[in-house]
Amino acid sequence: MAALNSIAQSARSEVDDPSSLLLKLGPEQPLRMDSGAEINRLQIAYQTYGALNPAKSNAILICHALTGDQHVANVNPVTGKLGWWETMIGPGKPIDTDRFFIICSNVIGACMGSTGPASTNPAHGRPYALDLPVVTIRDMVRAQAMLVDHLGVDRLLSVIGGSMGGMQVLQWAASYPDRVFSAMPIATGARHSAQNIAFHEVGRQAVMADPDWRRGRYLDAGVRPAKGLAVARMAAHITYLSESALHRKFGRNLQDREAPTFSFDADFQVESYLRHQGVSFVERFDANSYLYLTRAMDYFDLAADYGGLLSAAFKGATARFCVVSFTSDWLFPTSDSRAIVHALNAAAASVSFVEIESDKGHDAFLLDEPELFATTRGFLNAAATARGVA
Amino acid sequence: MAALNSIAQSARSEVDDPSSLLLKLGPEQPLRMDSGAEINRLQIAYQTYGALNPAKSNAILICHALTGDQHVANVNPVTGKLGWWETMIGPGKPIDTDRFFIICSNVIGACMGSTGPASTNPAHGRPYALDLPVVTIRDMVRAQAMLVDHLGVDRLLSVIGGSMGGMQVLQWAASYPDRVFSAMPIATGARHSAQNIAFHEVGRQAVMADPDWRRGRYLDAGVRPAKGLAVARMAAHITYLSESALHRKFGRNLQDREAPTFSFDADFQVESYLRHQGVSFVERFDANSYLYLTRAMDYFDLAADYGGLLSAAFKGATARFCVVSFTSDWLFPTSDSRAIVHALNAAAASVSFVEIESDKGHDAFLLDEPELFATTRGFLNAAATARGVA
Repeated sequence: MAALNSIAQSARSEVDDPSSLLLKLGPEQPLRMDSGAEINRLQIAYQTYGALNPAKSNAILICHALTGDQHVANVNPVTGKLGWWETMIGPGKPIDTDRFFIICSNVIGACMGSTGPASTNPAHGRPYALDLPVVTIRDMVRAQAMLVDHLGVDRLLSVIGGSMGGMQVLQWAASYPDRVFSAMPIATGARHSAQNIAFHEVGRQAVMADPDWRRGRYLDAGVRPAKGLAVARMAAHITYLSESALHRKFGRNLQDREAPTFSFDADFQVESYLRHQGVSFVERFDANSYLYLTRAMDYFDLAADYGGLLSAAFKGATARFCVVSFTSDWLFPTSDSRAIVHALNAAAASVSFVEIESDKGHDAFLLDEPELFATTRGFLNAAATARGVA
Repeated sequence: MAALNSIAQSARSEVDDPSSLLLKLGPEQPLRMDSGAEINRLQIAYQTYGALNPAKSNAILICHALTGDQHVANVNPVTGKLGWWETMIGPGKPIDTDRFFIICSNVIGACMGSTGPASTNPAHGRPYALDLPVVTIRDMVRAQAMLVDHLGVDRLLSVIGGSMGGMQVLQWAASYPDRVFSAMPIATGARHSAQNIAFHEVGRQAVMADPDWRRGRYLDAGVRPAKGLAVARMAAHITYLSESALHRKFGRNLQDREAPTFSFDADFQVESYLRHQGVSFVERFDANSYLYLTRAMDYFDLAADYGGLLSAAFKGATARFCVVSFTSDWLFPTSDSRAIVHALNAAAASVSFVEIESDKGHDAFLLDEPELFATTRGFLNAAATARGVA
């Protein structure tokens, strides 16, 4: 278990002292949040790739998903694995670092260096835990806007993200219509559905049912609600895959055995796989961050902030949009993307829509999907040309 | 909490001394199981409705689902609620007690009076817990056949059940082809899919992660893994409903409040509903039974017992079949039912197939579905006429 422990230790040290660029905001720049609360001395951890051009017109913001982080295109300092979008971002790749300046920041509420529930509360030197105000998608985007200001970028060439990242993309277009030249929300929705809220609630209940959660104060006690968080991850992981992908990968195949054991061991490969997903997630992710970020997704309902009319959210949008969904994604089905497209149409925005045929489910946006790469490359080329980026 | 505790106490007393008819088998009649193990001094709790005719040709066996029991058409002695299929079974109802003799037994492995992990092991007077051999669908059906023998019925007019009950129906047709005159598998499959195994594994892990599970020996310690079982139930419950049913019932409506609380309370109605489902289930159901019955479903793969060819399972079947699915059931989608129909066709069996339009998801078979009632009534009338039942 030494390797696992070193991952967990590394994850713990990234919380306050991340291996990333760091923006530390002073007490004169608190983050004012949707709840009415403020975070003082906010910290934002981020990575950049490529170089900002003199016109500052080639900056692209990548927004990460629930369990992602800012390490999109470099080796992850905790897991030692390649960045989560290495296939998408790099020299000559669809999001071309030879041409564009790419920014990705850890969202607030997470656990990779931006202020989150595991961060040390400067007020008393212990972790925030549940004293951190509940975070919304709009709060995350507010923090990103402060970072983009800090980097001297007025208007982003593009904002791109999938799943919870896609929610941030939509929020950017609504909150800062003049600062977004193009936007690419992928495998996402303008609001979280009742079924998605239900799955998140199961995960939160699993975490909070673990006696080692200790009402969120587990770090003070030197323990972690590992079993509860693993169960939460297992349940969520099923929703990231399609039924056909699970069938193709595992079917009813047994794990390292010829016949069922007539026991409660992980007889089936799919059981063994899920248990592994649960255990490995726990090493790298903070349980309270899981509560905060799932809550942020559940609260997301962009239309609600605009009198219930989604098109009103995009009324002032100047961006060109490319909306992407995947046929086998049942967490954010194509109907969610269509609702976004209809609202953009009603707002007379420039929008293209691509539904990609894939049997990989929601996770398709993270995987090797040539049509997604081609779509992204084409969309960014057109945006760059329109904006006069070389 | 007094009312809840009385439900839990009542559930506990039903385990060994049920308010049901009881078949107690002697040591000379052990249940020989798929695992190679035996259960000695098996106990089978059952209910009957209507009267067996002199020709003994009007008996119908109802097979219950994972969390169901034998109380199909009488007030449940634990919950005080109406039987789970009161809409279907009774005088003049689709399964007409004025005409048919209806039998329903608690499956072995469950907790309402048939031998299960909470039952007292006659060998030492403590609960079996995990000492009970793992149970399969075929083992459940073997026990039911012993009960049907005891009741003096050679051939059942019909075997009917939904979900796990439908698996038993299919197993009856395969194991006892001469004893089944007609069969109605509803909202089920001939094998459990990888996705379904995955959801069950999440539930089992949630139970086993609860420190009060105590490796299955919680009853000895006077505790129960209530939190873990509640999480398991919450996750499963989502799969019983369709996304559209959840949306129609709850959408994003808030629970008894005007605005989100920016906390981890159950802000949304769907969260509150799920928590209630979890908590109320725990009062009436045994956690180890949940492990055993989910495992039985996971192991179910009827074709595997017949060289991988499902049609071979039905080779000797003399029954007429009526296979039923629901359009919005994503746990046992219509494709699962079609696979059964194709195999029955290949075995030259008599089969009709009805896909019922419903947005209620898997649970539709338990709900007020007029087309299901009409289909059942018509199918049973035809079977009764063919067999000469008045």
